[in-house]
Amino acid sequence: MIASKPMPHDVAATGVPGSLRERFHIAPGLRYFDGNSLGLMPRAAAQAAMRAVTQEWAEGLILSWNQAGWDTLPQRAGEKIARLVGAAPGQLVACDSTSVNLYKVLVSAVRLRPGRSTIVTDIDSFPTDLYIIDQVARQFGLRVQQIPASAMAAALDTQTAAVVLTQVDYRTAQVHDMAAFNQAAHAAGALMVWDLSHTAGAIPCALDATQADFAVGCGYKYLNGGPGAPGYLYVAQRHQQACEQPLAGWFGHARPFEFTPTYQPAPGVARFLCGTSPVVALSILDAALDAFDGSDMARLYAQSLVLSDAFIDGVDRQLAPHGFAIASPRPHAARGSHVSLRHPRGYEIMQELARRQIIGDFRMPDFMRFGFAPLYNTLQDVQALIDALDQVMRDAAWQRSDPQVRRAFT
Amino acid sequence: MIASKPMPHDVAATGVPGSLRERFHIAPGLRYFDGNSLGLMPRAAAQAAMRAVTQEWAEGLILSWNQAGWDTLPQRAGEKIARLVGAAPGQLVACDSTSVNLYKVLVSAVRLRPGRSTIVTDIDSFPTDLYIIDQVARQFGLRVQQIPASAMAAALDTQTAAVVLTQVDYRTAQVHDMAAFNQAAHAAGALMVWDLSHTAGAIPCALDATQADFAVGCGYKYLNGGPGAPGYLYVAQRHQQACEQPLAGWFGHARPFEFTPTYQPAPGVARFLCGTSPVVALSILDAALDAFDGSDMARLYAQSLVLSDAFIDGVDRQLAPHGFAIASPRPHAARGSHVSLRHPRGYEIMQELARRQIIGDFRMPDFMRFGFAPLYNTLQDVQALIDALDQVMRDAAWQRSDPQVRRAFT
Repeated sequence: MIASKPMPHDVAATGVPGSLRERFHIAPGLRYFDGNSLGLMPRAAAQAAMRAVTQEWAEGLILSWNQAGWDTLPQRAGEKIARLVGAAPGQLVACDSTSVNLYKVLVSAVRLRPGRSTIVTDIDSFPTDLYIIDQVARQFGLRVQQIPASAMAAALDTQTAAVVLTQVDYRTAQVHDMAAFNQAAHAAGALMVWDLSHTAGAIPCALDATQADFAVGCGYKYLNGGPGAPGYLYVAQRHQQACEQPLAGWFGHARPFEFTPTYQPAPGVARFLCGTSPVVALSILDAALDAFDGSDMARLYAQSLVLSDAFIDGVDRQLAPHGFAIASPRPHAARGSHVSLRHPRGYEIMQELARRQIIGDFRMPDFMRFGFAPLYNTLQDVQALIDALDQVMRDAAWQRSDPQVRRAFT
Repeated sequence: MIASKPMPHDVAATGVPGSLRERFHIAPGLRYFDGNSLGLMPRAAAQAAMRAVTQEWAEGLILSWNQAGWDTLPQRAGEKIARLVGAAPGQLVACDSTSVNLYKVLVSAVRLRPGRSTIVTDIDSFPTDLYIIDQVARQFGLRVQQIPASAMAAALDTQTAAVVLTQVDYRTAQVHDMAAFNQAAHAAGALMVWDLSHTAGAIPCALDATQADFAVGCGYKYLNGGPGAPGYLYVAQRHQQACEQPLAGWFGHARPFEFTPTYQPAPGVARFLCGTSPVVALSILDAALDAFDGSDMARLYAQSLVLSDAFIDGVDRQLAPHGFAIASPRPHAARGSHVSLRHPRGYEIMQELARRQIIGDFRMPDFMRFGFAPLYNTLQDVQALIDALDQVMRDAAWQRSDPQVRRAFT
């Protein structure tokens, strides 16, 4: 069992400085395990929001495009993310939403593989990815194979144009081997598109070293960019010049301010930008990413594993009578930075935890997700969670009420 | 000549309350004529930004999706815009960028007109619209006819799938007759797609009454939503159920939180949403739109015309020796809320004005644009602009320097 005495966040074994936690606003009494859905607010993000709005916008107005560097925000924030996902400079920009970005890179990918007839993806993908894939397939007359991730590599053949896979499963935290999938896709002559929404900022990632082709991801989970923060996209250098993306807006033009009637794509990954950049949101994301300064993903991942190991251990030892099934893999290499429990009354249990200021989230049909964000979660948090789950399950009062089907963003 | 004595903003003839101007932050000494590019900051926008970041995000976290109404922001902000453009409820949402929104509605439009082979548009459109139109055409095997707006109606025929037109020309402020174009498009069996970026918040608009089909627009010009604010889109009620939009992300799903692997579009215009809503940016836009409370577009347009008439009058009378050509139409019905002058050294003249804290903008090749935002510009502003232009042209010092080709967001 985990020691119930307060322990420092600074776990000697991992080398993650406890001071990183101080960079976040954490409401008094709150135990937050939903950094996998919406990261906590870095204090610098609030400052950036105020600066962008009350100084750069209100005072600088249009001059801020140059003077405050609004024109390079997608690249500046993008390069900070690039460092977390193993991408050399010039391959990653922050822009639009994850869904929009997936559309852009997937259309680009299938255009690079004309004559091939299928897109292969994981049937357990986060649904918005499946919806976007279906639309791309429909527009290009392709067939989608939705199959379990474990069967995907064997399903690839000379008809496969692109393979789309979320590296860390949003429900179970199962991690898929990036190098192996890239290799399998390339062996079939296909291109590999990754969704890194639950990867970036949580576990190490080596896009360049494993020869990934394309990637997209979310800015508001472990990257702490704020609700609905811009997403990002990665396009390997070797593909950029050949890419034609469908959302060819003026910010992706080689010379947007010449206002030419004919589109000429920017030479690098900037051709994947579309409309005017969301300046305030990008400023917040850009500042939020500085919360990673002074650490690196290897040490953060070690911290994440210390936390999730402690949680799994606590479930095994302290919560055994309560009927939770651990849905996440136990081996380190197979597990992302959250742990999912399954329970038939999972939704109500999460509601009870929330009443105790312990926040995780719920995913249909019965997944209780607990994210362990290595930047700010602590072993005390984990023990408080275990104790609260224990207490909730021992408290029979709520269990007597009729089960209700309630919908919520939790 | 305009009276040089200070005049109240509250022009009795138009009925626009002077107090509306008080809703904006205006830096001391600044004369701002670029509300057609980036509107001034409404004071309420800064408050909304802080509330969204430091309260709703930092304190409420994921619970704010329900408790702070994040889930309905696209609709809430959308309905405020709907009132400014003559759209009944349930047809307009704020989301994504103008370019992305144009892509969504134009793909939807051409899907509603299968078998037709062309998209007709104005060769003088804002370039990002032309780029997006080209991409849609390429994907659906259509041909684009880029022709002058004045020739468009005559070019429509049974092969025309969709007509795309910006109602107010971004360079000249020429206004195109919405009713006439809708009628011409429908007579040919085509669908009409409007870009209202320079319309909304500046001149009256009657989307419903003129039977428009689709529209998109920008949130950061006369709507004052902040740099890179979300755009918006309108889909007439009668088309919504038949529309299939290409960026079918989870926020456009009928039941996004059931996480079903198959896309089922939301019943109304919400099906045009895609990824997770940009909450902070939408909160700012939503608050900014309250600056229109207490007035209406008819009165604001009257105020706009008082201002632009005064400017044109001043150019005619006071600036005649300096060689400016007025590029904007003189008839009221043909003119939006900015006035463009053309001058071979226009770029440098705008730089000189900026040194005097008078901000307009420049568009290639020689357009000097001056926006008259009826919410906050005054007749004193207009006279100060006239006087400054006069002074700049009389001051020979800067004209002796070599012309330089400088690029800037101005």
